[in-house]
Amino acid sequence: MKTPVRIAVTGAAGQISYALLFRLIAGDLLGPDQPVILHLLETPEARAALDGVAMELDDCAAPLLHDYVLTDSATTAFDAVDLAFLVGARPRIAGMERKDLLEINADIFRTQGLALNERAKRDARILIVGNPANTNALIAWSNAPELGADNFSAMTRLDHNRAVTLLARRCECPVSAVKGVIVWGNHSNTQFPDLHHASVDGIPALERVGWDWYEQQFIQTVQVRGTAVLQVRGKSSAASAAHAALGHMRDWVRGTPADDWVSMALPGDGSYDVEPGLVFSYPVVVRDGQRHIVRDLSINRFCAERMKQTEAELAAERAVVQHLLGRRAP
Amino acid sequence: MKTPVRIAVTGAAGQISYALLFRLIAGDLLGPDQPVILHLLETPEARAALDGVAMELDDCAAPLLHDYVLTDSATTAFDAVDLAFLVGARPRIAGMERKDLLEINADIFRTQGLALNERAKRDARILIVGNPANTNALIAWSNAPELGADNFSAMTRLDHNRAVTLLARRCECPVSAVKGVIVWGNHSNTQFPDLHHASVDGIPALERVGWDWYEQQFIQTVQVRGTAVLQVRGKSSAASAAHAALGHMRDWVRGTPADDWVSMALPGDGSYDVEPGLVFSYPVVVRDGQRHIVRDLSINRFCAERMKQTEAELAAERAVVQHLLGRRAP
Repeated sequence: MKTPVRIAVTGAAGQISYALLFRLIAGDLLGPDQPVILHLLETPEARAALDGVAMELDDCAAPLLHDYVLTDSATTAFDAVDLAFLVGARPRIAGMERKDLLEINADIFRTQGLALNERAKRDARILIVGNPANTNALIAWSNAPELGADNFSAMTRLDHNRAVTLLARRCECPVSAVKGVIVWGNHSNTQFPDLHHASVDGIPALERVGWDWYEQQFIQTVQVRGTAVLQVRGKSSAASAAHAALGHMRDWVRGTPADDWVSMALPGDGSYDVEPGLVFSYPVVVRDGQRHIVRDLSINRFCAERMKQTEAELAAERAVVQHLLGRRAP
Repeated sequence: MKTPVRIAVTGAAGQISYALLFRLIAGDLLGPDQPVILHLLETPEARAALDGVAMELDDCAAPLLHDYVLTDSATTAFDAVDLAFLVGARPRIAGMERKDLLEINADIFRTQGLALNERAKRDARILIVGNPANTNALIAWSNAPELGADNFSAMTRLDHNRAVTLLARRCECPVSAVKGVIVWGNHSNTQFPDLHHASVDGIPALERVGWDWYEQQFIQTVQVRGTAVLQVRGKSSAASAAHAALGHMRDWVRGTPADDWVSMALPGDGSYDVEPGLVFSYPVVVRDGQRHIVRDLSINRFCAERMKQTEAELAAERAVVQHLLGRRAP
């Protein structure tokens, strides 16, 4: 039997994790012959709910589930983990300022960054899903000086997937015909979904859909899609977020398709004139386990302005949580 | 591209379906190269929630999701379907007698049986998950005279999986070491989880665990596991039920493992002295797409008594809904 892979999931009794865990033990991430050990982190208040989830994991009789650990300790949760899905975050509640939300979550992710630094494998892949995902990732990374930028990413894959489907629908094509979509920047309403380098069945996307639809419909529809789902469904996106998280991590582990890139937020290196260190979503390819930002794409003024807007939001978020950043922070 | 397989799911906005649908479009049932068209049935009241689920299906950008149909019409839902998961059922609410519950659900499954009879493919595989599953399956089947017993089954796979894990834990073995577990009868507290033919690492299970633990702990723990999960989790089993439904259908489509059987409830043929026609859970193997009840297992008096108890419950359930059974009913 292969050595089990240790996978941490935080917020493990929440809705996104509930949609994620049962796919992890079914082999949806690492294939049908790779056993896993789940490290499930929850708050003490959610412990009963987590026990219930664990009962259901048992009830699957899944051969790939080698073992699980249930804990409210970040150091236990991240001990020797290969992969980590940081899903849990405090949601915004009525009357809470965005600044308050940032600070509360910053504290959670600072603690988790310290624990990851202490316990995770040195080549751990850590995906931050909990919002505000980019800034949470910045905080975790900056508090983990013995891990590197290569260990961290934040999820914009759900936005990316939404953009792919919206474009495919508009062109009445299957999603597999769409290549080269990019989501730049922050996983928030300032994100910039870019079709300048996208194609549909090999034809430039902007030729297919026309500028007006792109500028006046497409961009905003992708930006506010989360709110639209919430309004119709009455609950936040969960299964589609879990699906995106699996896709992000699968591509990170196994490599991106030969003929396409994906959108991933990661600590930047100054590419595309974005301030180094901000956790910014870029077009990314993964080869031999290594991520590479796709370079040298032409950026016109329209795009540059939108990239600056979302960069400015990330810089403003960072300013709010500056006192919680570790010494290595930019 | 392969011809898409049409899969109906009823109660499509409910919790079990929410755990099921995203695994169907990920290839967990039919593999990574088989496109699917989902036929999603809900009540008019749940239509908004279903629209929200469909938005999330879109947001996965899943290449295998060829199309979907959203409907509150059973005839539309079952039109030309290859596979059907009948998940939706009315839950028991406070003050409702079991008889009332049976009648309400019988009416739902009579309508669905008629629609399946009219519209489903003649070789459709139809799995009833909604409770009371066995009797709901009896009603659907009896109202579908142009389909046969081979088209219908009810789910006891969740009970089976629970029994496998409980036995494996007791023996401190992986679940893959367990073979030959049987759940006989009704998917209810009268079910009979049988270890007389089970083995763990090739050793008879009853030798491994001893009679007292089997009789005094194991049987009841499996029988009431659903209630235990509900109490701890605060919600009914959903993801584990979806996992079981996938396992049941996968084995039905692709065949059971060479060295084991599974538990499936199906219209009986008189095997093991069970009244023919009752939808009773048996040990089943699937070869070349055909189900076969495993025959000639020795049944001692202890087992025979328990099989008679669960059979009697099924006969009593049938008596309550007799007026809704179609002409072909036993």
